[in-house]
Amino acid sequence: MSGRLVGLGIGPGDPDLITLKAYRLLQEADVVAYPAPEAGESLARKLVAPHLPGGQAEMAIRMPMSVQRFPAQEIYDRAAGEISAHLGAGRTVAVLCEGDPFFYGSFMYLFGRMAERHPVEVVPGVSSLTACSAVLGAPLAARNDVLSVIPAPLAAEELKRQLATTDAAALIKLGRHFAKVRQVLDELGLTQHARYVERATMDAQRILPLAEVDDTAVPYFSMILLHARGEAWRV
Amino acid sequence: MSGRLVGLGIGPGDPDLITLKAYRLLQEADVVAYPAPEAGESLARKLVAPHLPGGQAEMAIRMPMSVQRFPAQEIYDRAAGEISAHLGAGRTVAVLCEGDPFFYGSFMYLFGRMAERHPVEVVPGVSSLTACSAVLGAPLAARNDVLSVIPAPLAAEELKRQLATTDAAALIKLGRHFAKVRQVLDELGLTQHARYVERATMDAQRILPLAEVDDTAVPYFSMILLHARGEAWRV
Repeated sequence: MSGRLVGLGIGPGDPDLITLKAYRLLQEADVVAYPAPEAGESLARKLVAPHLPGGQAEMAIRMPMSVQRFPAQEIYDRAAGEISAHLGAGRTVAVLCEGDPFFYGSFMYLFGRMAERHPVEVVPGVSSLTACSAVLGAPLAARNDVLSVIPAPLAAEELKRQLATTDAAALIKLGRHFAKVRQVLDELGLTQHARYVERATMDAQRILPLAEVDDTAVPYFSMILLHARGEAWRV
Repeated sequence: MSGRLVGLGIGPGDPDLITLKAYRLLQEADVVAYPAPEAGESLARKLVAPHLPGGQAEMAIRMPMSVQRFPAQEIYDRAAGEISAHLGAGRTVAVLCEGDPFFYGSFMYLFGRMAERHPVEVVPGVSSLTACSAVLGAPLAARNDVLSVIPAPLAAEELKRQLATTDAAALIKLGRHFAKVRQVLDELGLTQHARYVERATMDAQRILPLAEVDDTAVPYFSMILLHARGEAWRV
């Protein structure tokens, strides 16, 4: 009798933004697994720490900071093997996923390895997309707006092409690509409509005007939201 | 001393997909407000019914089914006036929002009327976007994918233009536009990568192949997800 694998969306940062369902499944799991850096603390585990009942087995899936495709494949293969062994022994394994498991999350790589052979449940979570919108007080999109989620590592020309064909946008994965994005927005005349936030809903949350962001110190957990009309919420 | 207005994301349907934070604020609110049809039951209120402690004042914001811009303006103006009166009396008002308040939600129209004069908190929720992805077992987007949320009421040519410039898409607000969308996907050769779900996470949830959907009976709460590469989750 196989155990069950559960991908738990734990929300964007604030521990209280976990769902009742994920909270319950977290408490019931035999094994709690989570992504972690090569050394040191897992952010995902830290975010749910207030909710852990204690006494559960834990499994850190450690990933080098600068990740190449092939080491990542090996790491996911190995993690899938470990999880399979737990499932084979009838244990329920909960994998913690920051935000939502399927919104640019690494859980999908485990899912792709496990879903054909084991029962897998995915519990959706509050994504960074809506969390950033909430703390910025900036509605994402309304009526027949097209909303595009655009990763900042794309080339400047591609960013411009994407921004030209959408009504509203979320620019994600800013990190070291921030300076490029700020220049693109400036060239398109969109700076006045853009809002920047880092670590939304976490204790260290910061909201800054684009001009005041230090482009050498932009974290991965940051986002720019913009709406071409400036305000989405006028009826 | 003004009371507080709270826009509560209550999640996509399953009552257990509300966050701990929204659950707590719901229980503490003096007044619970929610959108409702012109006559009959409010879906938002129904979804949180298991969590209502009882004894709270309630306020239905009733909207005609086929809504024109001007009646909608009047209805939001009137609701904002009622809510302002509660806040002026020091009461906390929680407005229930299906999914997330700022993801194509009508709460933004109240927010636009209230935020400059009153304290307003927005509590993000699990959106239909990630809920549909979870129940379909279909990751939304990975790595540097562009993900576009595209409302189905747009013209066929605009739908084609949007689909041609994105990696992954969520087609929302299908309703009576389903037949047009299905034909567009067919013409673009994308049907094999498209997945359809209605009422995700609700008791009446249905997942169907596109070809089997009755295009005369597609509900508003339905979505098509697709990824141009077919599978987002291969490392």
